[in-house]
Amino acid sequence: MQDIQSYISDNKNRFINELIELLKIPSVSADTAFSQDVLNTADAVMKALKDAGCDSVELCETPGYPIVYGEKIIDSNLPTVLVYGHYDVQPADPINLWDSPPFDPVIKETQLHPEGAIFARGACDDKGQMYMHVKALEYMTKNDKLPCNVKFMIEGEEEVGSESLAWFVPRNKEKLANDVILISDTGMIANDIPSITTGLRGLSYVEVEVTGPNRDLHSGLYGGAVANPINVLTKMIASLHDENNHITIPGFYDKVEELSTEERAEMAKAPFSLEKYKNALDIDDVYGEAGYTTNERNSIRPTLDVNGIWGGYTGEGAKTVIASKAYAKISMRLVPNQEWEEITQLFKKHFESIAPAGVKVEVKPHHGGQGYVTPINNIGYQAASKAYEQTFGKKPIPQRSGGSIPIVSLFEKELESKTILMGFGLDSDAIHSPNEHFGIWNYLKGIETIPYFYEYFTELSK
Amino acid sequence: MQDIQSYISDNKNRFINELIELLKIPSVSADTAFSQDVLNTADAVMKALKDAGCDSVELCETPGYPIVYGEKIIDSNLPTVLVYGHYDVQPADPINLWDSPPFDPVIKETQLHPEGAIFARGACDDKGQMYMHVKALEYMTKNDKLPCNVKFMIEGEEEVGSESLAWFVPRNKEKLANDVILISDTGMIANDIPSITTGLRGLSYVEVEVTGPNRDLHSGLYGGAVANPINVLTKMIASLHDENNHITIPGFYDKVEELSTEERAEMAKAPFSLEKYKNALDIDDVYGEAGYTTNERNSIRPTLDVNGIWGGYTGEGAKTVIASKAYAKISMRLVPNQEWEEITQLFKKHFESIAPAGVKVEVKPHHGGQGYVTPINNIGYQAASKAYEQTFGKKPIPQRSGGSIPIVSLFEKELESKTILMGFGLDSDAIHSPNEHFGIWNYLKGIETIPYFYEYFTELSK
Repeated sequence: MQDIQSYISDNKNRFINELIELLKIPSVSADTAFSQDVLNTADAVMKALKDAGCDSVELCETPGYPIVYGEKIIDSNLPTVLVYGHYDVQPADPINLWDSPPFDPVIKETQLHPEGAIFARGACDDKGQMYMHVKALEYMTKNDKLPCNVKFMIEGEEEVGSESLAWFVPRNKEKLANDVILISDTGMIANDIPSITTGLRGLSYVEVEVTGPNRDLHSGLYGGAVANPINVLTKMIASLHDENNHITIPGFYDKVEELSTEERAEMAKAPFSLEKYKNALDIDDVYGEAGYTTNERNSIRPTLDVNGIWGGYTGEGAKTVIASKAYAKISMRLVPNQEWEEITQLFKKHFESIAPAGVKVEVKPHHGGQGYVTPINNIGYQAASKAYEQTFGKKPIPQRSGGSIPIVSLFEKELESKTILMGFGLDSDAIHSPNEHFGIWNYLKGIETIPYFYEYFTELSK
Repeated sequence: MQDIQSYISDNKNRFINELIELLKIPSVSADTAFSQDVLNTADAVMKALKDAGCDSVELCETPGYPIVYGEKIIDSNLPTVLVYGHYDVQPADPINLWDSPPFDPVIKETQLHPEGAIFARGACDDKGQMYMHVKALEYMTKNDKLPCNVKFMIEGEEEVGSESLAWFVPRNKEKLANDVILISDTGMIANDIPSITTGLRGLSYVEVEVTGPNRDLHSGLYGGAVANPINVLTKMIASLHDENNHITIPGFYDKVEELSTEERAEMAKAPFSLEKYKNALDIDDVYGEAGYTTNERNSIRPTLDVNGIWGGYTGEGAKTVIASKAYAKISMRLVPNQEWEEITQLFKKHFESIAPAGVKVEVKPHHGGQGYVTPINNIGYQAASKAYEQTFGKKPIPQRSGGSIPIVSLFEKELESKTILMGFGLDSDAIHSPNEHFGIWNYLKGIETIPYFYEYFTELSK
């Protein structure tokens, strides 16, 4: 029997190569052109769970992509950890901005990852972080170190709203029964500043379509005389923020949790350099809601961003056209207490109300999710904190994240258990962007830390 | 020797088939993927001019696509007509909105074209209208009816700004010397309301690029904390019009010709039904600058329209990204006296000045052109008016168009002659849109009318 450090050191290259193989499959759930690849990835994950020591592994059919389920139950009197992750990835667009092909993983050193990082779509989000749990299980089963029961639920639609998971979970409450849910799909502050995410923002994602004339028109003959859907769309979107960058949708802020001065002072202690932040993004200034700091703007405050916009002629050269239609994808990040479905309705009602005569507007809700908070006195949080202290040599900082994992609040509602977000990625890992990567040090540190979580959680549960 | 009506009736099917063959070549000048097709179209036009009776035809090299030149000089003491047209076409996008393939011409009847119309990209703009002149020349040469000298200059870059023509014309003033320039690249009010375009709007076409962070970012982690280039672009574009839809660029209106109450009253006499206009476009209201009618808004007033916008994720499904860059193509239609290069500079200066901290803005001028007016006492206009009266049975109405043919003011400056815009298309022919078409009646009526122009112009020049 080996300890975890020497097991990792003996198997390091295999761990890396197995992840690389998984990253080669382009499991883009948002684009149906990749549907066979998504299914092939599910099969690969199933095999990996079997090899890592799960007693029973199955592909659970859903209305969409299947959910991979695996378990190893050693004693029904012991606590059960449910690991959640996802095997789908974001689209790789814009592909021309990648320095190497997104599904042909390469290892390169970076300033923040001197031991190398794997560059590929999904390297960090979430194949790499999910696979840490598979390899941690392998260590525990092969070395007789598993102190409790474990269940894995790995889905294939996280990047498109987890609709099938929302269908699956309430129908499988018994199968999924657990004492704590463990997810690695977030980040930490820095490799020498470990942190655990205790709060997530909610999300409402919509697509809007503005229709003007019933066909594309010549801008010379009609320009100035009919509503141009693109001009109208820009005016409508622009009006969604006022001069202080507050969102203007009536009722939008009604349920927003306002933090106390003390809480905001506590948050302000997290290490942050505005200069480094601006330099890393090559921007001359930050931009956001008046009255809040950068760290507050991207964590405790709700926001509204256009994620995509298109209409008219976008090819090479010039075309003097007035488009018939213009489109945008718009998402709102929400904070705890804001109800995402209510916000979607408020957006829809408001956006339709501000359409000028001469255009028709359609708002199509895409998906959404609630915000979430884990209290730091929860034993799951405490077990994770002790695990990080063990492997990083320092206590992790509890941190609110600006991102959303909508299913976390679903789990709380349906499975009545809290989720612990042990993320090992860095903000600079470029998830959802070209050149996504995941540090090899981080990958191995995750595999090292996870078994301690199982050990401490089992102890604290006694 | 035949008269023109019987010649057309004898050769009608051949005239139609020859045009259809020309329309099959996708001469899209805006997209380099079609460059061989553009060149092939030039060859086809050269052959057509030779067959129609030009004594000398040549392909004139330029920095871009070649200009087809042909001439038939019968007597240097007689006047010379220079015919201008273009053999390139607009891009066919969005192709999925065409009822038949854009480069596979079909003849279909429509309400306005009960004798059938040819549906294809370029059918009206400008292959069909240009080819009327070739067939009119054929009639005159084959039947010994050419009363004066004729030169043809057919270019391949009209849809992308005629840059090579602007290079060619000043270098070939002697070759191009003429007494009047004849162009069919505009429309008329209706088949029973002939009209001749006496004014054109100018154009300034620019592309703008807004850059925020140096890479695409996850909207959860960064949303609300950095300037989102798409949101910023919408705000910047929205601010270009005030609440009365006046353009807010400082100095934009300084040189705009203001028409007198009498002139506006004269314009208002043109037949126009707001209900029919709205029904034809399926819009519930028109939209435009306060204080002006629809016909004024699209002819005597300058305008600013977004012709294309893009940024972020525009594929299927959802992607929670903050794009690094957002783009728009913006064109301004100008009226006589506005200098297009000055307006481009005013736009650039203003647009750059309104960029908020946190983004960089680049404005790239595409192309432009001056507005233009032909006085109706010009003998070219009078010859055209008499020609229409002969073939339509009624006097044509002089009309200001909202469109731009930037090279018309170039011709006036370099060649010192006036241009007569004898357009035979209808506004409903969907030029620059899917399902562009050209009425067969209009095509043949153009061929019939043009020889009378030559006859009257030669007479009036004595």
